[in-house]
Amino acid sequence: MSFRKKNMGPREACGIFVIYGHPDAARLTYLGLYALQHRGQESAGIVSSDGQIMMAQKGMGLVGDVFDPAKLSTLKGHIALGHVRYSTTGSSVLKNAQPLMVDYSRGTIAVAHNGNLTNAAQLREQLEAKGSIFQTTSDSEIVLHLLAGLRVDEEKDAVLAMLEEIRGAYCFALMKKDEIIAIRDPNGFRPLCLGKLGGAYVVASESCALDLISAAFIREIEPGEVLIINENGLESLYPFGRGRRQSSCIFEYIYFARPDSVIFGNNVHEVRKRFGAQLAREHPVDADLVIAIPDCGVSAAIGYAEESGLPFDMGVTRNHYIGRTFLQPRQAIRDFGVKVKLNPVREVIRGKRLVVVEDSIVRGTTTVLRMASLKEAGAKEIHLRISCPPHCSPCYYGIDFATKRELIAANKSVEEITRFLGINSLGYLSKEGMLSCFGDMRDKFCTACFDGCYPVPVEVKTDKYITETDRLQEYMRFPESVPR
Amino acid sequence: MSFRKKNMGPREACGIFVIYGHPDAARLTYLGLYALQHRGQESAGIVSSDGQIMMAQKGMGLVGDVFDPAKLSTLKGHIALGHVRYSTTGSSVLKNAQPLMVDYSRGTIAVAHNGNLTNAAQLREQLEAKGSIFQTTSDSEIVLHLLAGLRVDEEKDAVLAMLEEIRGAYCFALMKKDEIIAIRDPNGFRPLCLGKLGGAYVVASESCALDLISAAFIREIEPGEVLIINENGLESLYPFGRGRRQSSCIFEYIYFARPDSVIFGNNVHEVRKRFGAQLAREHPVDADLVIAIPDCGVSAAIGYAEESGLPFDMGVTRNHYIGRTFLQPRQAIRDFGVKVKLNPVREVIRGKRLVVVEDSIVRGTTTVLRMASLKEAGAKEIHLRISCPPHCSPCYYGIDFATKRELIAANKSVEEITRFLGINSLGYLSKEGMLSCFGDMRDKFCTACFDGCYPVPVEVKTDKYITETDRLQEYMRFPESVPR
Amino acid sequence: MSFRKKNMGPREACGIFVIYGHPDAARLTYLGLYALQHRGQESAGIVSSDGQIMMAQKGMGLVGDVFDPAKLSTLKGHIALGHVRYSTTGSSVLKNAQPLMVDYSRGTIAVAHNGNLTNAAQLREQLEAKGSIFQTTSDSEIVLHLLAGLRVDEEKDAVLAMLEEIRGAYCFALMKKDEIIAIRDPNGFRPLCLGKLGGAYVVASESCALDLISAAFIREIEPGEVLIINENGLESLYPFGRGRRQSSCIFEYIYFARPDSVIFGNNVHEVRKRFGAQLAREHPVDADLVIAIPDCGVSAAIGYAEESGLPFDMGVTRNHYIGRTFLQPRQAIRDFGVKVKLNPVREVIRGKRLVVVEDSIVRGTTTVLRMASLKEAGAKEIHLRISCPPHCSPCYYGIDFATKRELIAANKSVEEITRFLGINSLGYLSKEGMLSCFGDMRDKFCTACFDGCYPVPVEVKTDKYITETDRLQEYMRFPESVPR
Amino acid sequence: MSFRKKNMGPREACGIFVIYGHPDAARLTYLGLYALQHRGQESAGIVSSDGQIMMAQKGMGLVGDVFDPAKLSTLKGHIALGHVRYSTTGSSVLKNAQPLMVDYSRGTIAVAHNGNLTNAAQLREQLEAKGSIFQTTSDSEIVLHLLAGLRVDEEKDAVLAMLEEIRGAYCFALMKKDEIIAIRDPNGFRPLCLGKLGGAYVVASESCALDLISAAFIREIEPGEVLIINENGLESLYPFGRGRRQSSCIFEYIYFARPDSVIFGNNVHEVRKRFGAQLAREHPVDADLVIAIPDCGVSAAIGYAEESGLPFDMGVTRNHYIGRTFLQPRQAIRDFGVKVKLNPVREVIRGKRLVVVEDSIVRGTTTVLRMASLKEAGAKEIHLRISCPPHCSPCYYGIDFATKRELIAANKSVEEITRFLGINSLGYLSKEGMLSCFGDMRDKFCTACFDGCYPVPVEVKTDKYITETDRLQEYMRFPESVPR
Repeated sequence: MSFRKKNMGPREACGIFVIYGHPDAARLTYLGLYALQHRGQESAGIVSSDGQIMMAQKGMGLVGDVFDPAKLSTLKGHIALGHVRYSTTGSSVLKNAQPLMVDYSRGTIAVAHNGNLTNAAQLREQLEAKGSIFQTTSDSEIVLHLLAGLRVDEEKDAVLAMLEEIRGAYCFALMKKDEIIAIRDPNGFRPLCLGKLGGAYVVASESCALDLISAAFIREIEPGEVLIINENGLESLYPFGRGRRQSSCIFEYIYFARPDSVIFGNNVHEVRKRFGAQLAREHPVDADLVIAIPDCGVSAAIGYAEESGLPFDMGVTRNHYIGRTFLQPRQAIRDFGVKVKLNPVREVIRGKRLVVVEDSIVRGTTTVLRMASLKEAGAKEIHLRISCPPHCSPCYYGIDFATKRELIAANKSVEEITRFLGINSLGYLSKEGMLSCFGDMRDKFCTACFDGCYPVPVEVKTDKYITETDRLQEYMRFPESVPR
Repeated sequence: MSFRKKNMGPREACGIFVIYGHPDAARLTYLGLYALQHRGQESAGIVSSDGQIMMAQKGMGLVGDVFDPAKLSTLKGHIALGHVRYSTTGSSVLKNAQPLMVDYSRGTIAVAHNGNLTNAAQLREQLEAKGSIFQTTSDSEIVLHLLAGLRVDEEKDAVLAMLEEIRGAYCFALMKKDEIIAIRDPNGFRPLCLGKLGGAYVVASESCALDLISAAFIREIEPGEVLIINENGLESLYPFGRGRRQSSCIFEYIYFARPDSVIFGNNVHEVRKRFGAQLAREHPVDADLVIAIPDCGVSAAIGYAEESGLPFDMGVTRNHYIGRTFLQPRQAIRDFGVKVKLNPVREVIRGKRLVVVEDSIVRGTTTVLRMASLKEAGAKEIHLRISCPPHCSPCYYGIDFATKRELIAANKSVEEITRFLGINSLGYLSKEGMLSCFGDMRDKFCTACFDGCYPVPVEVKTDKYITETDRLQEYMRFPESVPR
Repeated sequence: MSFRKKNMGPREACGIFVIYGHPDAARLTYLGLYALQHRGQESAGIVSSDGQIMMAQKGMGLVGDVFDPAKLSTLKGHIALGHVRYSTTGSSVLKNAQPLMVDYSRGTIAVAHNGNLTNAAQLREQLEAKGSIFQTTSDSEIVLHLLAGLRVDEEKDAVLAMLEEIRGAYCFALMKKDEIIAIRDPNGFRPLCLGKLGGAYVVASESCALDLISAAFIREIEPGEVLIINENGLESLYPFGRGRRQSSCIFEYIYFARPDSVIFGNNVHEVRKRFGAQLAREHPVDADLVIAIPDCGVSAAIGYAEESGLPFDMGVTRNHYIGRTFLQPRQAIRDFGVKVKLNPVREVIRGKRLVVVEDSIVRGTTTVLRMASLKEAGAKEIHLRISCPPHCSPCYYGIDFATKRELIAANKSVEEITRFLGINSLGYLSKEGMLSCFGDMRDKFCTACFDGCYPVPVEVKTDKYITETDRLQEYMRFPESVPR
Repeated sequence: MSFRKKNMGPREACGIFVIYGHPDAARLTYLGLYALQHRGQESAGIVSSDGQIMMAQKGMGLVGDVFDPAKLSTLKGHIALGHVRYSTTGSSVLKNAQPLMVDYSRGTIAVAHNGNLTNAAQLREQLEAKGSIFQTTSDSEIVLHLLAGLRVDEEKDAVLAMLEEIRGAYCFALMKKDEIIAIRDPNGFRPLCLGKLGGAYVVASESCALDLISAAFIREIEPGEVLIINENGLESLYPFGRGRRQSSCIFEYIYFARPDSVIFGNNVHEVRKRFGAQLAREHPVDADLVIAIPDCGVSAAIGYAEESGLPFDMGVTRNHYIGRTFLQPRQAIRDFGVKVKLNPVREVIRGKRLVVVEDSIVRGTTTVLRMASLKEAGAKEIHLRISCPPHCSPCYYGIDFATKRELIAANKSVEEITRFLGINSLGYLSKEGMLSCFGDMRDKFCTACFDGCYPVPVEVKTDKYITETDRLQEYMRFPESVPR
C-alpha cells in the first residue's frame, strides 16, 4: 500500500522528536529523526536553543539530504526540536516544512505537529476575520496564531486556553528558548512517548527513536496530557481531566508505525502477529504456504503461519533502493511502479497454493497489480488475507486515505473485490476479531475508517477553503515536469 | 565601495518589477529582474496570477540561479510581481525572500518592498501585543499584518488606512489575484516608474528594466501616489495630498542606481557626469590623467576630465567573473578581495600624476588598499576625488551604510583621511556643489547621510528588538563555515 | 556485514545491463539498473546508440540520483549498455564510472565490466611499456587498450585475441554503434544471463533485472561464452572450448545476489534456505526462537527454522531510510552506525533463547555490536549460526573482503570468536555441508575465500603499482571532510 | 561580439596557470584561474603534487562554482597546475575538462593546453592505427599519447621528440610529480609568461594572473621555448632554434586578452588605444561623440577620441549579472540576448552624431541588433568604427570564429555591410594601419583571419573524423532542454 506518497490536503502524518538538557541536542535530534523517517519524507527540520537564542534549519527531502555537518553545527544548544513531514510532490512547499518558528509578544516560539485539527478551516476563518495572515497551510500556524492572540504572561496559560479551541487529533511539541511543552490530544489519537538519556529528557512520536539514541523508555505521554519540561524538571497538566475515553488510531498498528516501536502500550510487531493469528482463525484455508507483502504484511504473515501451522516463506522481495524513481514509463512498462519495489520469488511461488498476507487494501489499484504479478510467477491459488477490516470511510485525524469514492471497500462487496483482484479467495480481519487482540484495551481505539464512527466531530470545510486553497494545492502539487 | 555585501539589519535596498496584462507575465518579470539585479543579489522571487490562482517561486541567489524553465513554467497568468533582495551572508534566510504571499480575510495577497520603515520596531511591537506572529524580519510582513487587521471590504481602503501607520522610505507593490497596487512614500525616497508594453502596464524600480523588455517609459510614480492597476485600467490616489516636500535619496544617483536608468527626473549617468564636472571646478589639480574606480566612478571621471581638459584613461580594469570567491586567503595574499575585482593597468599609470575619481568612501578600508595598489603600479601622484560629500551619518531609509562609529568621515578630518590613504590630495564634492547640479530640483533630495538632517523622524529601536532579534541576526549571519 | 562500503583497490563488484533492439533502450536500461542497484552504489552510467551515434551519461551516486528525464532523453537509440559500480567514498572518482567509452581505430566502443582481472597489474605494466596511457584504474581500460592494440578488421577477432591475454573473474559487455558483445570468463565466476523482451535481447548480471522490465529469462550466458548480438541476431563463440571446470563464486549465493534472482542455475533464496536447513542439521540447539539478521540472513533463518522445527520470528527490524548518514557521533553514541540500520524488537527477544542466523562474519566488528544489542534487548541466550564457513582468505576475483590480517576467522578459533562476541554458541556452516546443498553441481564453485584454493592463479602486484597507485587511492578515498 | 559562447569543434582558447615551490600552491592556482576566467568559462581544473602524489579536481562551470574549500583542501602540495576551458553548452563534456592526468610508463603526468594543433586529426588517426584509444576530443590527449609512445627515460627527451610531431598553435604545461615543463610553440601564437612569487615560479597565460597573486612578472616564455622547472631551478631548451619568425595572434590584442595584461611585449589596453587612434586617422568623421561597445571597444574608443579630439562618453552600459540567462524568449522579446548585456544610455545618445567603436564584426547578427538599439535610443547618425580589419578567413589556431560561409566580411562588401547594419558609415582599421601600431614588431603577427595567409599549414580533416566525431559533437552540444 503506497498511499504515503499522496497528500490530499493539509493532513499530516509526521514525526516529532524533542530533547531537553543534552549538550549534543541537535545531533541527537538528527539521529532521532532518522528513526522516524518512515513517518514523513517530504521535509525535515530542527530548531535548537542554547537557552537564549533559537536557531532553525529546514529543508525539503529526507533527513540525510536536508542536513550536513555545517548545517548541524549551526544548531547550538542543549534543547532541540525536530520534525519530519509527510511526502508529497512539488517543490514550492518549503514554507510548510516544520518546525515553524515565529516571534510574538512573549518572545520566540517554535512548534512541530503530528495529526490533523478537524476544525482547522473554521479556526482559520475566524482568525482571518480577526486580522491574521497565513503563510502556510499547516495546522501549526493556526496554533501559533491562537497562542499569540492570548493576552497572558505564561505560555502555559496560553496553551491551556488554546487547547479549548482546537479539535481533532494532535500531538504538539512547542519550544521556547528555555522550555519544551509536549501535548497529546485527549483522545490519544497519535502516539507520543517520553524517554531519558542520562539527565536529558526526550519526547518522540515512537519509541524506536529512543532506541536509536540508547535513551530509556519511561512512559507514553498520556492522552490529554500537557507535559512541560524546563529547568525545574517535568510538570504534567491534565486540562481535560483524566479518564476520558481514549480512541487511539488503530491504523498506526496496522500500517503506520515501525514494528520495533511500542505505542499505545503494545509492541507493534506483536500486535500485527496477533492480527495475523486471528486472521488465520477467521479465514483458514487449505494452502501450501504463507507469504507476506513486505514490509507491513510480514509480522501478520508470521502470526498467520504460526496459528495455521502452514509454513512461512519469503515469496516476495523488496528492493531497498527505490528512493527516487521519477519515471513512470507508460509506453514501455505498465506496472513498473509496483515492480521496482517488490518482486515475487518465482521459485518459492511456482505451483503453490498461497496464503498472501497484506496489511490493507485502499484503492485496490496496487493490489490488483501485485496479485497479477504473483499469478504470472506461477502461483496455483491465491488466498489473500488482509490484516484489518475493509476501509469504508475516510480518516479526518491525520491519515491520508483516499476519499470515500476511491475506497474500493466502500463501493464493492468482498465478492466483487475478489473477482476484481482475480484471486481465489479474500478474507478481511473482522473488526471484532481485530479488537479482540487487545483484551481489556479493546474499546480504546478509533476505528472510524472501518465503521464510520468518528469519535471527534468533523466539521465540513467552508466553501472558500475548498475552492481557493484546494485549487492552489492542485497547482502546487503538479507543476509541470519539475526536474530534480 | 562594497557595502552591498553587508546587511546590518532589516534594511533592504531592493528591486521591484510588476507587469499587469501580458500573457507572458512571469517570463517578462524574470527579464525585468535581470535588469534590476544590481539592487539585490541575495534572493529573488516571482508571484504570478491568472486572475484566479496565485503562484510563487522564490530562492536564494541571483535571478539566473533561482529560476529555471521548469520553475518559470509553473508561474502562469497575465499578472506577475517580482523582487530581488539585498545581498548578505548566511543560508538560513530564505524565509526573508520576497515577494511575501499570505492568505487573509480578503483572500490571498503578495507584497514586495524596497526601502525601510523607520517605525518598524514600534509597529512590530504593537502588532505582537495585539497577537500577531512574525515569521520573517522584513517590513513587508508588518505591512501585511496592518492590512489584514483592517476590517474593510476593499483592499484600497485598507491600503489607505495602512499608509497612515507607516513611516519611512518605501516603495511597495501589492498583488492580489486580479489587481496590482503600487505605492511610493510621500517623500519619494526610492525610485519607482511606470511603463507600458503593448496593452500591459509595467512598474519597476528603475527604468533600465523597462528598456530591457522594450517597454515604453510613461512616467515616474509620484511621491505619495497609490497606483491601482486592474481590469478597469489605472487609478491614482494621493492620500497624502500632492505637493509635499520631496526628499529623494541622492545616493541612488551617486552609487546605487544603474547609469542607464532615469530616476527622479534625470538620467543617472548624466547626473554623475555633472557631479564630476563640479568636482573638477571645486578641486582642480595639475595632473596628467583622470582615471576612475569602476564602475560607479566612470561617469563622474568622464565629467571631471571634460571639465578639466585632462585626458581620461582606463587606469583600472574590472574582472567580470568574481561572483563567487569564497576564499580570503589571509596567509597568502592580503588584499585578494580588492585585487580580484579591480586591477590597475600599470602601463597607463606608471609615472603619471593621477586624478582618481571614486563615487564615495564609507569605511575607508577598501579605498586604502586600492590606493596602495595604484602606488605599487607606479603612480607618481594620486589626487583622489570623491563625487559626493563626506559620509558622516547613517542612513535609516534603506541604504545599508556602516554605523557612525565605522564611517571614516565621521571620525577623521579630510586631512587625516588623506594621510590615512597615503595620497597626495583628497577632494570631496561639496554638498552645495552636488545640489547645484540639479538646478530647480536642488531642494528635493535627502542628504541625511552627509548632513544628518533626517527628513522623516527616526524612532529608536526598543530594547527587546535589539537584544533578541539582533543577536539572532548575528547568529544567522555568521554560521560556522557554511560550504556551498 | 557491511563490507560493501569499502573499496580496497581496483576490484569491482558491479552490475551490467544491456538491451539490443528496443526503441526505448535507455529507459529500460535505467529500470534494469534499479534492479541491480545492490551490486553497486558508487556510480551509474548508460551508453546508448541509434546505430550511428553513441551517447553517454554517467555520474556519481545511485541510479535515481544520476539520471533525470533530461539526461535520459539525450540517450537515443535502440541499443543501450548500463552499469552500476561499487560504493566507495571520495568525490574525485567520476573518471572510474562506467561504461567507459573511447574512440579507436575501429570506431567508438564502450565497455562495462563486473569482476577482477588477476593479471591486471602485469597487463597494465606491459601496456604502459608499449606506450599506453591510463586515465582510470579500472580493468575496463586495460581491456580497451588490448582491443585497440590488435590489428584486425573485425571486433570479434580482436575480442578473441584479447581473451587470450586476460586472467581472472570477468563479465564484460562491449558495445559498438551497432553491436553488443557479452563475455563471461571460462570459470564462470560472476553471473550473467540472457533474456528477451518482445524482439529485443537483454543481458543482465542477475535475472531480477529481467523481471523488473517483464523480460523473459532465456538462459545464463555460459562460462567462456562470447555472445554477439547484432542485426543478424545471436551468435555464440566458445574460444575456451566447452566443458572446462566451472568455479562460480559461491559468495554470490551467500550474500551478494538478490534473493529473487536465479544465478548459476538456482534461485538465490532457495539456496540460502538450503544453507539454513543444513546449518540446523550441523548445529542444532535447544532454543525458543530463530531470528535473522536482515536482509541476507532471512532466507537462511527460514530454512533453519523449518528444519529445526523452531518458530521463526522477526527479532530485528531494518530501517529503510539510512541512505545518507554522514554522522558518526563518537562522543554521543558509539554504535549508531549499527543501530540506525537494524533495531532489535525487544518484545520478541526478551527472555528468549535465540538462534540468530547471519550470512557471514568478516572482521567481526559489526557482529559484536549486534550481539551486544540483542543482549541489551533482553536475549536470554544467543546461539549465532553463520550460513557459510569461516572466511580465512581474501578474494581476488571481485569481492572486496578485508585482507587476511583483518579476517577474524583467519586469526581466531571458533571458540575465541565465540568469546569475543560474548555469545553462548557459534556455529559456521561447514564447507562440505554448504556444497552438499548443490548435489551434482557441488564441484562447480569457487570456495577460495574459505579454503584458499584459488582456481585461477593470482599474480602478485608489482611494486610500482602498489606504492604509487595505492597511495593515490588512499588520498582519494579519504579527502578531508567533504561535505555533501 | 559573442563568439565566446560557441564551440565549433575541438579548438580551445583556454587559460593556463602553474606554480612551483609554494606551500599554498593549489590556493594560489585557484586565484590565478580567477584572473584567467575570461579565457574559458566551460570548465576548470587543478592538479597538485606534494612531490610524491598527484591529485586532481575538475568540474564544469566557473572557477568559483567548481571549487569549494573542501575540494581545494584535497589539493595538497607545493606544485599545482590549473586550467580554464572555453565555454560551450551541454553537460556531458566533463571528460574534456583539463588538466588531463594519466598514468603511463614514466609515472603519472598531467597536461593543460591552450591552442589548437593543426595536424590533430592526422595524429589521432596515426595513433589509433597504432592502437591508441581516445577518451576525449582534446589535443592534450594526443600529446599524452605521443609522449607515452616514446621509449626514453627522461621526460625531457620525450617532450623534444613529441614536439617534432605536432603542428599548430599551442602552449602546454606538463606536470609530473616533481617537475613542470612549459612549452610555447615556435610561432608564439598564444601568450605565456613567467613570474616569481617569493621563491616560487609561476607560469600563466596572461600577466594579469601574476598581478592578482602579487607575483612579479619576469618575462614571457619565448616562442619555441621549452622551460623546465624542478628542484634544480629553471632550464630552457630551444629545440626549434631561436630567431624563427614569430606569428603571434593579433586577435589576442583585439579581443581576447584582458586589457590589464602584458602579452607579446605590449600592454593590451595601450595597443587597443593605438588601434583606436589609427582608426581615427584612417576614418575621421564629423561627429558629436565617441562611444564604445563595452568591454573590448572601450580602449579603442578612448584612443579614437583622443586622436580625433571628439569627446568620449559612456553611451552604452553593461549589465554585470548576466551569467546565466537560459531564456531566449522568442515569442516575447527578440533581442533579449543583446539587451540583457548592453543597454544604450538614451540621454547620452539622443540627437547625437555618434562614432561607435567596436572591436570586431564576425557574423554581424549581434552588431545589427546593437545598431538598431542605438537608433531606437535616438542616435542622429551612427558611424561605426571597427578596431581591426574585416574578418574574411577562419582561424585554425585556437580562436573559434565562424566558418567562412558565416563571416559577413567574407561575403559582403563594406558598403553592403553598412547597408545591412542600417548605419551612416562603417570604417574598418586597415591591416597596414593595425600593424603600423607595432613599429619594429609589425611582422611578428599572424593576420590569417584577415588575409588568409596561414603561417602554419592547415591539414584538411579526414572524412572519418568529420562524419563521426563532428556528429557526436553536435549531439552533445544540443541535448534536449537540459535544465540546470
